[in-house]
Amino acid sequence: MATLIRAIPEMQQIAEAARRGGKKIAVVPTMGALHEGHLSLIRIARQHADLVVTTIFVNPMQFGEGEDFQRYPRDLARDTGLASEAGADIIFTPDVSAMYPPGYLTSVTVEVMTGLLEGKSRPTHFRGVTTIVTKLFHCVKPHIAVFGQKDAQQVAVIRRMVSDLDFDIDMIVGPTVREPDGLAMSSRNVYLSPEQRRQAPVLYRSLRLAEAALRDGERGRAEIVRVMQALISSSSSGDIDYISIADAGSLQEVESVAAGQSVLVSLAVRFGTTRLIDNILVKV
Amino acid sequence: MATLIRAIPEMQQIAEAARRGGKKIAVVPTMGALHEGHLSLIRIARQHADLVVTTIFVNPMQFGEGEDFQRYPRDLARDTGLASEAGADIIFTPDVSAMYPPGYLTSVTVEVMTGLLEGKSRPTHFRGVTTIVTKLFHCVKPHIAVFGQKDAQQVAVIRRMVSDLDFDIDMIVGPTVREPDGLAMSSRNVYLSPEQRRQAPVLYRSLRLAEAALRDGERGRAEIVRVMQALISSSSSGDIDYISIADAGSLQEVESVAAGQSVLVSLAVRFGTTRLIDNILVKV
Repeated sequence: MATLIRAIPEMQQIAEAARRGGKKIAVVPTMGALHEGHLSLIRIARQHADLVVTTIFVNPMQFGEGEDFQRYPRDLARDTGLASEAGADIIFTPDVSAMYPPGYLTSVTVEVMTGLLEGKSRPTHFRGVTTIVTKLFHCVKPHIAVFGQKDAQQVAVIRRMVSDLDFDIDMIVGPTVREPDGLAMSSRNVYLSPEQRRQAPVLYRSLRLAEAALRDGERGRAEIVRVMQALISSSSSGDIDYISIADAGSLQEVESVAAGQSVLVSLAVRFGTTRLIDNILVKV
Repeated sequence: MATLIRAIPEMQQIAEAARRGGKKIAVVPTMGALHEGHLSLIRIARQHADLVVTTIFVNPMQFGEGEDFQRYPRDLARDTGLASEAGADIIFTPDVSAMYPPGYLTSVTVEVMTGLLEGKSRPTHFRGVTTIVTKLFHCVKPHIAVFGQKDAQQVAVIRRMVSDLDFDIDMIVGPTVREPDGLAMSSRNVYLSPEQRRQAPVLYRSLRLAEAALRDGERGRAEIVRVMQALISSSSSGDIDYISIADAGSLQEVESVAAGQSVLVSLAVRFGTTRLIDNILVKV
């Protein structure tokens, strides 16, 4: 069973000793509520490192007002069991009061790309993400950090931050893990009613439709978005928050896809109070 | 003679190897134009570490528009000689284009206290400082970082950042080094005309006056500021930018000094286009 660590200095001492001993450390940052997607990342970490640390921290700074910080699912005993089975050596799960003590004032920001896509609906979200990831990197001192492609914008933003702030850390991005019907695994799927759950795979079906259109030679953003919208509204009660056809590196929207361009097709759809996201990368 | 390193990956590899070898690394971040103040910090670093790295980087991000980034004095050969004599093993002097490559988007911010004092006159200054210090920490991977009390607000802001972002780094603050007539050593003193240079020690004299008033039982901010202003305007042509009587930890202004309080008395005065700062800490 993985060792549970709560204190920041203890985590740092263990990391320091491991590094001095020539061990490679990999970190898999999570907010708990682990599902097969997280576990696949832990298994990837296990293949690349001697010491695998899974962090479990529901980070208040990345939730906006009215978002689901309070009701976000928490079950440390279950998560510890699952992470251990997948190969985690250490579960680092600091208290909120240790991460954000009284007088806390510091944040890390990546400009521009954090105001797009998810950042439009969640204006302070990525500042919370980049700040907590910086803090977790300083606690765990990893050589390698593993993130999931499910959160494509998060991956792009953290990649930018790691490069800009000269973190000496290699990033590995694991593929999105899906339910048999195509729904991307997410800790928020548990919020869905049975009927919403039945409709939710429409996100991935719309992405496959976009991919097929691109492969068939369609280059215009408007047409791709139109067929995705048509599918979603005809076969679900979901409210589309956004559909984006963007450059995979800069996350800037593209009006017309260029030959050789890597395109991130992504969307967010609300089912009642539950907001789901999904994406695919297409190299045209 | 110290080894000169320009490439970020080379600096990181050397730091990594030193740490694995059990060596303690200390960093002294500077913008070059080294004077006795910097050298005293390098000597302090030498006493505490096995590998002493002095960084020399004139950081464009911490200069505002119309400030002296272009004319800031640069003399790497001279600085390398001085730093080596004082005990530096490595001079890390990256290029601007390597630190801020095209597409750079990330910054580190400490709220509230960076909008006070120096931050009022230089609104983006401390964001530049905290960002470059974060980057330099990730390049040099120090156990210890040495800063000078001359830049008192910088010390308070970086202390806050180191704590908030969980940097596993001990901070050491070296005392302000002064010319025989009391003028705090600064790379910007070279800008002063002979007449301005003659008047410039009035900053320190006004601080000593404030200290004496506090020691004599004066507790009111207004009276302390009044005697400092009177001295400066009667004996120099300097324009006072601010005079501050603040809590040394939070940098919040105090109207009335409390018993036992640590107070930072600080000021900025312009002589023509040259802006000088100085401060003293007084424990009442």
